[in-house]
Amino acid sequence: MKLMNKMIAMSFILWLIFNQLAISQTDTGFKPADSNIMNADFPKISQDNSVYVRLKAPGAANVQVQGGDGLCPKPLALVEDSAGNWNGIIPKAGPGFHYYWFLIDGVRVNDPGSDSYFGYGRPTGGIEIPVPGEDFFYPGSVPHGDVREHWYYSEITGKWRRSFVYTPPDYDRKSRRRYPVLYLLHGAGENERGWSLQGHMGFIMDNLISEKKAVPMIVVMDNGYATDKNAPPVAQGFSMKDMTRMAETLEQVYIKEIIPEIDTYYRTIPTRENRAMAGLSMGGLETLLIGLNHIELFSHFGLFSAAIIGNIMDDPKSAFKGIFANAASFNKKVKVLWFGAGSGEVQFVKMMDDSRKKLDDLGIRSTGYISQGTFHEWHTWRRDLKEFAPLLFK
Amino acid sequence: MKLMNKMIAMSFILWLIFNQLAISQTDTGFKPADSNIMNADFPKISQDNSVYVRLKAPGAANVQVQGGDGLCPKPLALVEDSAGNWNGIIPKAGPGFHYYWFLIDGVRVNDPGSDSYFGYGRPTGGIEIPVPGEDFFYPGSVPHGDVREHWYYSEITGKWRRSFVYTPPDYDRKSRRRYPVLYLLHGAGENERGWSLQGHMGFIMDNLISEKKAVPMIVVMDNGYATDKNAPPVAQGFSMKDMTRMAETLEQVYIKEIIPEIDTYYRTIPTRENRAMAGLSMGGLETLLIGLNHIELFSHFGLFSAAIIGNIMDDPKSAFKGIFANAASFNKKVKVLWFGAGSGEVQFVKMMDDSRKKLDDLGIRSTGYISQGTFHEWHTWRRDLKEFAPLLFK
Repeated sequence: MKLMNKMIAMSFILWLIFNQLAISQTDTGFKPADSNIMNADFPKISQDNSVYVRLKAPGAANVQVQGGDGLCPKPLALVEDSAGNWNGIIPKAGPGFHYYWFLIDGVRVNDPGSDSYFGYGRPTGGIEIPVPGEDFFYPGSVPHGDVREHWYYSEITGKWRRSFVYTPPDYDRKSRRRYPVLYLLHGAGENERGWSLQGHMGFIMDNLISEKKAVPMIVVMDNGYATDKNAPPVAQGFSMKDMTRMAETLEQVYIKEIIPEIDTYYRTIPTRENRAMAGLSMGGLETLLIGLNHIELFSHFGLFSAAIIGNIMDDPKSAFKGIFANAASFNKKVKVLWFGAGSGEVQFVKMMDDSRKKLDDLGIRSTGYISQGTFHEWHTWRRDLKEFAPLLFK
Repeated sequence: MKLMNKMIAMSFILWLIFNQLAISQTDTGFKPADSNIMNADFPKISQDNSVYVRLKAPGAANVQVQGGDGLCPKPLALVEDSAGNWNGIIPKAGPGFHYYWFLIDGVRVNDPGSDSYFGYGRPTGGIEIPVPGEDFFYPGSVPHGDVREHWYYSEITGKWRRSFVYTPPDYDRKSRRRYPVLYLLHGAGENERGWSLQGHMGFIMDNLISEKKAVPMIVVMDNGYATDKNAPPVAQGFSMKDMTRMAETLEQVYIKEIIPEIDTYYRTIPTRENRAMAGLSMGGLETLLIGLNHIELFSHFGLFSAAIIGNIMDDPKSAFKGIFANAASFNKKVKVLWFGAGSGEVQFVKMMDDSRKKLDDLGIRSTGYISQGTFHEWHTWRRDLKEFAPLLFK
C-alpha cells in the first residue's frame, strides 16, 4: 500500500515536471487569445489550438481549470510556479467559443483576463478559439445593423424585462419598410444577451444580408425564463418539470406581451408567414412547446441542439395539439422545420435523428444539419443560424 | 509579548462570536438585493442598508469581502460556518450602486449571485443599495428609448469598436426629426457599457424627457481607451502620462471616426451648438482634454468627479489652447460648463472647487453641484446626469 502511494506520488511528480517542461517548451508558440480583455496576456492559444491558462493565486492549495464541452469538461489540475502562478495547458480545443473557469480549492471563479458571458446561471468567462477558413461570424466591411436593448414591463411576471432587438442595416434609412421577425432563444442558464454577445448574431446576420443570402429581418432575443407573479418561484433547474412550467408562463409572455410589444414598437410584418422562432438547447425545447403550439403565429421553426426531452415526441401524432396528425396540412402551413446539432454532441444528434425519423414516418417534412467537429456550444449554434436564416421568409 | 498575542487572539475570538451573533440576530431583517441574479439569496440588505454577504468556500483558509468607496474600501474578514459558508456584514452602505468582490486567500473573485459589470479593468460584481425617495434612475411607466450597440471599424486603432447609442423614445416614430447629441464617457477601468448598465442612463433620460425636463437627445457612449495601431501598446494605467497619451489618440478617434460615424448613421443635428460632452473621473479628464480643445465641435461640457490632475489647470490662462484667456468670448461660446462631485469624495470636491475658483478669477462662468452622501461611485454620476442633462441644448 505504501509502495502504491509512493508510485502515485512519483507519477504525479513526473507529470508535474512533464507539464512544466511542456509549458516552457511551447510558451513561445502561444499567442494571447483574441477574446482577452484589456491586453491580458493569458489565456494563450497555440497553432494546434491548445490553451495555456494561468491564474495568480499564491495562497491556494489547489487550482484547476474547467470549461465547456469542446474545451475541458473535466477539471484539469494546474501547477504552481515560484511566482505563485498556477499554469496548465488544455490540449487541442474545439473551434469557436467555449465557457471556462478556474476552481480555487474547489470554488468556481472566472479568469480576470476574460470578458464575462452569462452561462450556467452566472457570469462566466469565455475564450474564442480560431476557426480557420470561417469568417461568417466576424464583423466584415459590410453595412451593420444595430442590436438594441429594449425594456418593457411584463404584467404576467410583474417585472421589467428586456429584449435585445437586431434591426437590419437599412432599417433606419428605409423608414417605411416593414420586416419579418425571427424570435431567437438562448439556452438553459444563459440570458437574452447570449445571442448578440457570444453568439455574434449581429455579425452573422449583417454578413448574410450583405451577401443577399438572407432577407433583411428583425431578430428578437428575449429572456427564456419567466415566472408568473402570482405563482411560487420556479426552481430555475434543468428538469423537464421545471422547463415545462417555465415554458407555460413564457408562452403567455410571448403571446400577450413580447410579440405585441415588438409589433407595436418596431416596423414588423405582423403575420404568421413573417414570423419565425428558433432556439438552442432549452430554447429549442421552448421553440417546440411555444412555437409548435401556435402555428397560427409562426411559420418557420429552428431547433438548434434542441433538448427534445421528456415524452414530448413519444407520440408525435398527439403532440402539440395534434399538428403532426395531418402531414399535408402541416407541410403546407409550416414552411421550414429545421433541426441542427454538432457532431460532437452525440446525445443531441440522437434526439434530432429520432425526432426527424418519427416525423418522416408521418410524412412531415424537415431538414437536418450536422455541424462538423463542434459540441454543445456556441459555435454549433452560430453555424446553425448561418444555415437556418437564409431559409426564412422566402 | 505572549500576553499581548493572547489578548489579540481573545479579541479576535470575541469579534467572531459577536459577528456570528449579529448575523443570527439580524438575519430575519435582511432581504436579497434587487440586483441579485437568478433568484440568488445573497447578498442581503437590511433596513439600515447593512449588507450581509456569503460565499461558499469550504476549502479556503481565509475569505474577505471588499468593495467600492461607499461600501467597503478596506477588506473585511468573513467568518466560516459549519457548512463551509463564509459570512459577514458590511455596516451601513452608501446609496446606489457599488462594485464589490471577495478575496479567497488573497485572490480577487466575484460573487456568483451578482451580475457582472465592467470595472477595475475586469468584470466585477455589483450591488444596488436602495435610495429612499429617489426613483429617477428606475424604469418608469413612460415611453422608453432604445440603447443600441453600434459597431464600426476604426482605422486609427486598427480595431472594431462599438458605441452604445441611446435614441430617445420618439426617434423611430418621428422619422424626419433630427436630434442633438451628448457624448458621455465612462471612468478608468470601465468600458462603453458602464453608463447604460450600472449607470441606468437610459432610464434617467427616459424619465427626464417624459417630464419635459430634458429635450429629446441622442446619447453616445463609446470606449474611453484607444491605442494608435502604429504605436506601442499604452499601459492602461491611471498615471497622468498614460491618460494624456491615451487621450491624444482618443481625441483623433472622436474627431475623425466616432463623431462622423454618428453623424452619418443617426439623425443628428451636426453642429457645435447641438453637441455636448461629459464624462466621469477619467472620462471627465478626457472631456477636458478632448472637448475643451475642440470648442469648434462642442458647446456644453459636464465634468462628473473629473480627474483634474497633472498640471492642466495650473495656469488656466494658457490651458486648452488658451480658451479661458478671453472670458467674454468663452462665456458666449460655451453654453454650459458644469462640475459635479459627491460629498463623500473629498479629493474630487477639492479638485472641482479649486478649478472653479481659478475659472471664476478669470471671469469664466461655471456651475458646481454636490451630490449629498455619495462617493466616487455611480450614484453620484447618475445624479450628475439628472442635473446636467436638463441644461443641454436650450
